[in-house]
Amino acid sequence: MIFKMPTRYFLSSGTSEGYMPLNAFDGALLQAGIGNTNLVRMSSIVPPHCKRVAPIPLPPGALVPAAYAAITSDTPGEIVSAAVAIALPENEDQNGLIMEYSAKGERQKIEDTVRRMAEEGMKLRGWPIRDLQSIAAEHRVEKVGAALAAVILWD
Amino acid sequence: MIFKMPTRYFLSSGTSEGYMPLNAFDGALLQAGIGNTNLVRMSSIVPPHCKRVAPIPLPPGALVPAAYAAITSDTPGEIVSAAVAIALPENEDQNGLIMEYSAKGERQKIEDTVRRMAEEGMKLRGWPIRDLQSIAAEHRVEKVGAALAAVILWD
Amino acid sequence: MIFKMPTRYFLSSGTSEGYMPLNAFDGALLQAGIGNTNLVRMSSIVPPHCKRVAPIPLPPGALVPAAYAAITSDTPGEIVSAAVAIALPENEDQNGLIMEYSAKGERQKIEDTVRRMAEEGMKLRGWPIRDLQSIAAEHRVEKVGAALAAVILWD
Repeated sequence: MIFKMPTRYFLSSGTSEGYMPLNAFDGALLQAGIGNTNLVRMSSIVPPHCKRVAPIPLPPGALVPAAYAAITSDTPGEIVSAAVAIALPENEDQNGLIMEYSAKGERQKIEDTVRRMAEEGMKLRGWPIRDLQSIAAEHRVEKVGAALAAVILWD
Repeated sequence: MIFKMPTRYFLSSGTSEGYMPLNAFDGALLQAGIGNTNLVRMSSIVPPHCKRVAPIPLPPGALVPAAYAAITSDTPGEIVSAAVAIALPENEDQNGLIMEYSAKGERQKIEDTVRRMAEEGMKLRGWPIRDLQSIAAEHRVEKVGAALAAVILWD
Repeated sequence: MIFKMPTRYFLSSGTSEGYMPLNAFDGALLQAGIGNTNLVRMSSIVPPHCKRVAPIPLPPGALVPAAYAAITSDTPGEIVSAAVAIALPENEDQNGLIMEYSAKGERQKIEDTVRRMAEEGMKLRGWPIRDLQSIAAEHRVEKVGAALAAVILWD
């Protein structure tokens, strides 16, 4: 293996305004408690036997594998939302599946969509679902805003 | 070095329909045999002396460095294709180059383009080509579809 | 930790024409001295006590964590620029922040913007700035061109 296998994960979300879209994204990461780390984006699996934990304070600057949905907008008044869902299989020797979705619109609709996406992914695998977890964030843009939802893998 | 050096690689491709674009992408990954891993996208080199192997069953949830081309579409009837090419140098102490390309259109055209891209990349380096490898996938969209072609690095 | 903590970093930039946008990007990476590595993109922190060094020759094919801004264009005559900035805190036990920005337009304007972005990011953290570093590249497109600016983490 090139990289170590993650053994723990947590869910986190945030929103922010910012000077530029990347500043708003940075602010949303900070609110989510992961703004001082180096997120390495990946697609998008929870390893078997990887345990959900409460958010962990991560070492500043650490390289951290993460799956996340993020959206930025510079249209004042626009509502944007980001959500992630995790579907975990009944058979704990199989992996879980992470889905990400972000779009204009209210949190409930975006979160419903991403949960359905995770269910569809498990249906495609033919794996019954033991648990379906999700987190979402909604933001009404003032000038430049961002919404973020993330699954952080750790060991 | 921050990460371990890859020593083996394989090529893989897939296509799928899905509930949402990310589901179609997930289905294409599954068809390609890499749907239960965490792909970490990188740009886009085969290390010297890295050996091509037949597709390897990867541990579920493993973090896997990969270069890939992917395209999704929700336009029924549209044909989309994705392709990757690897140009390997005559001097085996030098690295190979991976190119990715995806677009509307038929597989042959997309694959020809990505092969040419890899040739141009080696020309830019002034390195004669020992071998040119490629893989491609074409998909005609029903509702929401995806095509994917990937180079997976492993050790 | 899943990945090793970076201890050194350097800044680098490049521009290029190319057969396709990805070839122009590849050429810009080569000019920047990082074209034969596997960049793993991350968001976007310099760890505490990570030291700036002169550009290091990296092992071909190595997986290298990097934060970068890149822009490609196929509009002849268009000027495109890419820039990164790093704001380092007075308190050396805290991490630095990397910001990336690329857009149509001249280097000076893009670099000014990205420096301001890094300042705003530190203001959001409430951390006084000890040093503000940046690098930028500007390219006038002939046929297909790219500009790139990067922060490379290493150990």
